Amino acid sequence: MKKIAVILSGSGVFDGAEIHETVLALLAIEQEGASWHCFAPNIDQYHVINHLTGEETTETRNVLIEAARIARGNIEDLVNLKPIEYDALLIPGGFGAAKNLSNFAIKGAKCEINPDVKKACQAFAQEEKPAAYLCIAPTMIPAIYGPGAKGTIGTDPETAKAFNAMGGEHIDCPVDDFVLDQKRRLLTTPAYMLAGSISEAASGINKLVKHLVQLA
Amino acid sequence: MKKIAVILSGSGVFDGAEIHETVLALLAIEQEGASWHCFAPNIDQYHVINHLTGEETTETRNVLIEAARIARGNIEDLVNLKPIEYDALLIPGGFGAAKNLSNFAIKGAKCEINPDVKKACQAFAQEEKPAAYLCIAPTMIPAIYGPGAKGTIGTDPETAKAFNAMGGEHIDCPVDDFVLDQKRRLLTTPAYMLAGSISEAASGINKLVKHLVQLA
Repeated sequence: MKKIAVILSGSGVFDGAEIHETVLALLAIEQEGASWHCFAPNIDQYHVINHLTGEETTETRNVLIEAARIARGNIEDLVNLKPIEYDALLIPGGFGAAKNLSNFAIKGAKCEINPDVKKACQAFAQEEKPAAYLCIAPTMIPAIYGPGAKGTIGTDPETAKAFNAMGGEHIDCPVDDFVLDQKRRLLTTPAYMLAGSISEAASGINKLVKHLVQLA
Repeated sequence: MKKIAVILSGSGVFDGAEIHETVLALLAIEQEGASWHCFAPNIDQYHVINHLTGEETTETRNVLIEAARIARGNIEDLVNLKPIEYDALLIPGGFGAAKNLSNFAIKGAKCEINPDVKKACQAFAQEEKPAAYLCIAPTMIPAIYGPGAKGTIGTDPETAKAFNAMGGEHIDCPVDDFVLDQKRRLLTTPAYMLAGSISEAASGINKLVKHLVQLA
């Protein structure tokens, strides 16, 4: 059975991993006959957002502990991820990918990636194992894969511009499809960068995961 | 388009609404051509569990605010739920259903249901609108529907015994099926009371939601 490592960034669209995208991706991995294995960095979240009001709270929450909610406790500290043991990588979106895994949401094209996240992602790249980045997570691709890496964040002009400014090659993509950088075995789909419903998000994620598992 | 009201109990299997069950149910509602409308009681959670370690923390969290994470902010205070405006009701499981919506996890067969939750659920029952209870949520059924109401929590003998002690009629059910109390238009499925994977949970939830939307 092919093993897919999944890196989460918390639990909740505004400060963590997007919950629908994550569950849809995990379900699709199972339905393609592969197994999922969740990891998250053991760090504080950039901040905590009240998802009812959209306001920042004074709380401190830990990315790994919150991500464990989506994974039903079936998750490990990212430092334990050995890419050699897995066949592919998948990173869901949600602002956590741009606030906790990287700081793209704050620094835009000048962002940095968390060192442990970068190390893990680069290992998958170097071993030429297929990797999938959903929603806003592809903003980490230029720093991981270097100049010329192709990817999509949908059609948002600002984010696409930043993707290109970092050295990537952005390709517009509708919600029900994905972009493949064949040379780098790299897959991206807009998910909630464009989706207006769970079923719209599922349409692109299901296609992407099917191809990811085939490549793995 | 048929409108399905969904009552959430937080966000996370050990102290809130089960995240996979909720996302699967919302997706299934969309795929059956209906729309979902999330509600949750504006109350503190019974407690907060660290989902990585399983231990109780000293934090206080609000059921509505945490449930908003699963709903991407698209949720309302349960006191605003007017059953007359909806065609059916669905309540996912997770310990939140037995800790926040009721106190079954603490008091077993002697449990009480939160008054606002009880009022909303009884309104759906009295108006003879179909209602679906997933996983551990069916433990609220006897107090809402009165003696003789049929339902399942899967096959766990202790929980089934408590269901019967409260006046319900428990029917064992496999994870990929649901139980229908035709007279009461009441549907139940074991979900994570039995599921060992997301796709197993989906098998029963998809069948249940299809029938729920047909009945609505």
